[in-house]
Amino acid sequence: MLPRGRPRAMGAAALLLLLLLFGFLLFGGDLGCERRKQGGRAGAPGCFPGPLMLRVPPDGRLRRAAALDGDPGAGPGDHNRSDCGPPPPRPSKCELLHVAIVCAGHNSSRDVITLVKSMLFYRKNPLHLHLVTDAVARNILEMLFHTWMVPAVHVSFYNAEELKSQVSWIPNKHYSGLYGLMKLVLPSALPAELAHVIVLDTDVTFASDISELWALFAHFSDTQAIGLVENQSDWYLGNLWKNHRPWPALGRGFNTGVILLRLDRLRQAGWEQMWRLTARRELLTLPATSLADQDIFNAVIKEHPGLVQPLPCVWNVQLSDHTLAERCYSAASDLKVIHWNSPKKLQVKNKHVEFFRNFYLTFLEYDGNLLRRELFGCPSQPPPGAEQLQQALAQLDEEDPCFEFRQQQLTVHRVHVTFLPHEPPPPRPHDVTLVAQLSMDRLQMLEALCRHWPGPMSLALYLTDAEAQQFLRFIEASPVLAARQDVAYHVVYREGPLYPVNQLRNVALAQALTPYVFLSDIDFLPAYSLYDYLRASIEQLGLGSQRKAALVVPAFETLHYRFSFPHSKVELLALLDVGALYTFRYHEWPRGHAPTDYARWREAQAPYRVQWAADYEPYVVVPRDCPRYDPRFVGFGWNKVAHIVELDAQEYELLVLPEAFTIHLPHAPSLDISRFRSSPTYRDCLQALKDEFHQDLSRHHGAAALKYLPALQQPQSPAQG
Amino acid sequence: MLPRGRPRAMGAAALLLLLLLFGFLLFGGDLGCERRKQGGRAGAPGCFPGPLMLRVPPDGRLRRAAALDGDPGAGPGDHNRSDCGPPPPRPSKCELLHVAIVCAGHNSSRDVITLVKSMLFYRKNPLHLHLVTDAVARNILEMLFHTWMVPAVHVSFYNAEELKSQVSWIPNKHYSGLYGLMKLVLPSALPAELAHVIVLDTDVTFASDISELWALFAHFSDTQAIGLVENQSDWYLGNLWKNHRPWPALGRGFNTGVILLRLDRLRQAGWEQMWRLTARRELLTLPATSLADQDIFNAVIKEHPGLVQPLPCVWNVQLSDHTLAERCYSAASDLKVIHWNSPKKLQVKNKHVEFFRNFYLTFLEYDGNLLRRELFGCPSQPPPGAEQLQQALAQLDEEDPCFEFRQQQLTVHRVHVTFLPHEPPPPRPHDVTLVAQLSMDRLQMLEALCRHWPGPMSLALYLTDAEAQQFLRFIEASPVLAARQDVAYHVVYREGPLYPVNQLRNVALAQALTPYVFLSDIDFLPAYSLYDYLRASIEQLGLGSQRKAALVVPAFETLHYRFSFPHSKVELLALLDVGALYTFRYHEWPRGHAPTDYARWREAQAPYRVQWAADYEPYVVVPRDCPRYDPRFVGFGWNKVAHIVELDAQEYELLVLPEAFTIHLPHAPSLDISRFRSSPTYRDCLQALKDEFHQDLSRHHGAAALKYLPALQQPQSPAQG
Repeated sequence: MLPRGRPRAMGAAALLLLLLLFGFLLFGGDLGCERRKQGGRAGAPGCFPGPLMLRVPPDGRLRRAAALDGDPGAGPGDHNRSDCGPPPPRPSKCELLHVAIVCAGHNSSRDVITLVKSMLFYRKNPLHLHLVTDAVARNILEMLFHTWMVPAVHVSFYNAEELKSQVSWIPNKHYSGLYGLMKLVLPSALPAELAHVIVLDTDVTFASDISELWALFAHFSDTQAIGLVENQSDWYLGNLWKNHRPWPALGRGFNTGVILLRLDRLRQAGWEQMWRLTARRELLTLPATSLADQDIFNAVIKEHPGLVQPLPCVWNVQLSDHTLAERCYSAASDLKVIHWNSPKKLQVKNKHVEFFRNFYLTFLEYDGNLLRRELFGCPSQPPPGAEQLQQALAQLDEEDPCFEFRQQQLTVHRVHVTFLPHEPPPPRPHDVTLVAQLSMDRLQMLEALCRHWPGPMSLALYLTDAEAQQFLRFIEASPVLAARQDVAYHVVYREGPLYPVNQLRNVALAQALTPYVFLSDIDFLPAYSLYDYLRASIEQLGLGSQRKAALVVPAFETLHYRFSFPHSKVELLALLDVGALYTFRYHEWPRGHAPTDYARWREAQAPYRVQWAADYEPYVVVPRDCPRYDPRFVGFGWNKVAHIVELDAQEYELLVLPEAFTIHLPHAPSLDISRFRSSPTYRDCLQALKDEFHQDLSRHHGAAALKYLPALQQPQSPAQG
Repeated sequence: MLPRGRPRAMGAAALLLLLLLFGFLLFGGDLGCERRKQGGRAGAPGCFPGPLMLRVPPDGRLRRAAALDGDPGAGPGDHNRSDCGPPPPRPSKCELLHVAIVCAGHNSSRDVITLVKSMLFYRKNPLHLHLVTDAVARNILEMLFHTWMVPAVHVSFYNAEELKSQVSWIPNKHYSGLYGLMKLVLPSALPAELAHVIVLDTDVTFASDISELWALFAHFSDTQAIGLVENQSDWYLGNLWKNHRPWPALGRGFNTGVILLRLDRLRQAGWEQMWRLTARRELLTLPATSLADQDIFNAVIKEHPGLVQPLPCVWNVQLSDHTLAERCYSAASDLKVIHWNSPKKLQVKNKHVEFFRNFYLTFLEYDGNLLRRELFGCPSQPPPGAEQLQQALAQLDEEDPCFEFRQQQLTVHRVHVTFLPHEPPPPRPHDVTLVAQLSMDRLQMLEALCRHWPGPMSLALYLTDAEAQQFLRFIEASPVLAARQDVAYHVVYREGPLYPVNQLRNVALAQALTPYVFLSDIDFLPAYSLYDYLRASIEQLGLGSQRKAALVVPAFETLHYRFSFPHSKVELLALLDVGALYTFRYHEWPRGHAPTDYARWREAQAPYRVQWAADYEPYVVVPRDCPRYDPRFVGFGWNKVAHIVELDAQEYELLVLPEAFTIHLPHAPSLDISRFRSSPTYRDCLQALKDEFHQDLSRHHGAAALKYLPALQQPQSPAQG
């Protein structure tokens, strides 16, 4: 990370001069002309915040140049208002604003979330997001928005695959690939009744309320259909290097990272034919687009300059290499939208990059849960499920000593599945995914786990937004982890005081893509051979197809960080005999694994069946469609036990595998365990959860569930899990 | 934590009606009258955002009612501007705004930081904070702002103790105590040349740019001197309960959580005498103030109504119990400043409390480092030290493989000393403070540590802003920790990828208040008797006064989480003999503690002197003024070793105490250690740091430092620390 907030001196006067000099260039459109006609202050409208100079034209309609003044949302201190103008065209307080974004792949999905966070932070209007996505992005974003439950945000998805054929004929060299070009087909892809939309690249960050941008639609003349900010580089001037031949453009051309689209007018004007014609013609002499859709937009505009309404440059401050963006803003307070339009993104160099980077990091690390705040004052449909959730929460008794447990159980966590690039495993009939969950304090386990388990993994991580970024850097820094595309990391965002262990397990389980899963815990390292051995055993035993069973992987533990991991059962038994290994929880809680029958396992040559007994919590391999974990168990205790009870109640055989083993590594007790040990209330609440679990079990399984009732079992020590 | 973002329906129409009904009450001042005179829209100016209705008076000066409209910072979409008014009185872009806050004690200091974060987030002007503080708050805030290095923020401190006598004669029942009353004496306490100041309570949160508030000064008539928002409760109406006798006020009175003060006019009007006279007179019949300064402000205003300029209610949305604040805002977008003026603070109930709480949490958990972003466009004096820092950072070579180390060494971390209430230990000549540092993953150690060490502790915690809040809740939830007022927790805010271990140690060391310190690590539990034994040994040996020595506390380790901690040296030796304990790092790195000479220690009855040897890193007790740790060692490795070298170079005797011991508990390796183990570059960089350390050592100690040169020692394995 680079240092933040290095102060930098600024030649404000020099900048002002520059602004005056370049004002003409920055505004090529009619507004610039409008301003020039007014005389003296032609310089850089859109860029220079200063006293307003408006005129009331003869028709009495006030030309709203103030809106293009780059003036930071003028507050009460600004006296330039009066009742001498017409009613304001600002979007009415609760007007629904439409935003379209093309997004494909894992990395862009992360980007788009940061963009959305910045937009939501400042927004004061209901929003409708139109997301054109590939299958990967849709899978991620659909789950994310569903679990985010932000009030007054509606999301629609459009299938990018279906649009591909409309743009795939265009040769393109830009890093955004085919997806960048899809902005061209939005007028036909978006619903016919949608007339206005703001189109955004995934790499922009808002520093202001999007309704201010939306308000600029009001400045379109009757024929203008595309609002754009001028390109803040010399690219289209064609003089960057010898033989540099860019696509045609008006002057510096326009940047398409932020677009106001009048879809209705484009449809009417025959946009579909228009851009295709232009593109085909240019491609007769040019080999390919260099800047994707932007080249084509510019070529069309060059031909039909009446289509474009130039926007103030602060609405798309472009931080490409060699950017001229500094000509646009004179102070931090001018910025409205920042556009990271360099492939280098945050590593780009420019004068105020520290400032911009801090701004970006603000939203990258911002706790998205806080954006669930209601947009009160604007009536809107609550997000799906929100009402029931609200009712359930409202019914909780705050005086209940187990209130925290109840609340945690009801909490809907934001879920970002496949946070990092991930290749789904090829379909193989007996393949097994290792399923586990963790938080930051167990990241160190990942490398070792990757060395022990060469197969697919589905891991749920319980993180804050800021921790998710640390996690990202951790993976990038590790060659072992960065190389593994078959490990899927699903981020579940933290909320509430208790660790939602079973909700995490269920997220990881639901995302496993192989027919079988190995339900493990993050502190365990499986035998090196386990992945291969499990697949062979599954095939051999006909697990799932012929036999409804859970395969038990016997668990052991070491008390030393550094120990020589056994390469075979023989080695393991030798370590066990010298006391370098123990059966898992041998000292603290032997009941948890006693039914595995370690004595029999020593000798076993073939899988053997064992019977369920109270508090049994082995690590098992089951078909992916196995019962889910009971999410009522939050924090520490009984979370796996209840799952094994459910398997047994559903008549899964428990088969111990004779060559399988997994070994627990030592770690400091988690905060939840510490809390459990020190709090009688915590234990009482856990007991209440267990009682409720048993009631539900009886309800589902009737008399067959009787055997699980604690009263019918031998006396127990306080619950463990 | 309560659930966030529960959507709530709102009777907007009913609210509008209420607003119209209460409009007259909400504005008692001249502006309200001004608006009423205009006819129809008399209702709630200041509260109801709607179309503006201004008139241009005959003198051509535009009365700026728009500013009082509670209109969310009107952006470009708002067309109600024209050139028919006078030049705007909004503060010029870089005008310095002055803010005064009275702050006393540990908890208010935390509050004030959240307030300042919200203010900085939205501000676009340079700020000068005038902080009236007690010694505790000054100590905290001076260090915090010094290390925060926010550009364009100047901070002045004023000694609250010196002002006490001016208000201590007033009997007061409010929870803010004497400090609340100090707002009354600001006109004399603040510099005579200061004419305008915004006065804030510590429990307000900004939701907008403070310059909009400052702009309201422009609406003061020539005689008005105090800008206030009406009280949003019925308190001053005197009908809350039978025999409720509040202080006199105009109608509902005004709330003093946010005040615009024209100090110049108050001084001129004889404010000093004015408020004292009023207070004395009222106190003839009233026993005490109930709401501190607010009662007196209101009584003065009742007598001199011409002094007050009522402000729009959105500038002080009061979330007390039974608040009427809802009458003030109709939508989330209206809010400017939120005031948590209930002793219940975030636990207060009201209709939109989830919204407000999310807003507050945004800044509570906001990464303050991000506010170091430069206010570019406004030239300002860089914070002290910022320029040198910037130069040093600029000289770093980004291609240097050790760039991250160099950068981390130069990073100035924000430091919040005594984050929680803390009682300094009484002065005792041989008292010892345990000094250590930790991050979130070692919080579980604190309870055990408190049980083992009954004396004072000074602990540095490396946390993010959000983690600091988790830490707070952790302490509050633990009766053991909450009961200890002699443990000082100093939060050092995270920045950068490497753990700044020695910077943390130096913060904890600098804050130790006893004459001696025990330099420990967080994973160690000292012998139960160690605190008493050390004090006795210090006295007996004349440490510091007669003898320049470091007392060595022999270190051991256990590999088990649960083990029976020895109550005596005899018990410890027995555990050692059965292999339940080892000398520290016996297996991995015996060199680190070999010079302690454990064999001799077994038999020793009296302290014995040992000689320094390479890589020795014992845990020692030294006078508080001992050499600091070398901050160049960041991450893992050699950080303690270098300190012991420095002690030896400065001719501290190393004396092993025969009855002292401390035991290391097992934990998973830290991320830094994992990184060290897996990265050759990391090790190379550490070697470079060691080489530089030795060069510096030779520079300081000349030939005497020769013995520390690695070349003159036996060959080593990769550096450990």
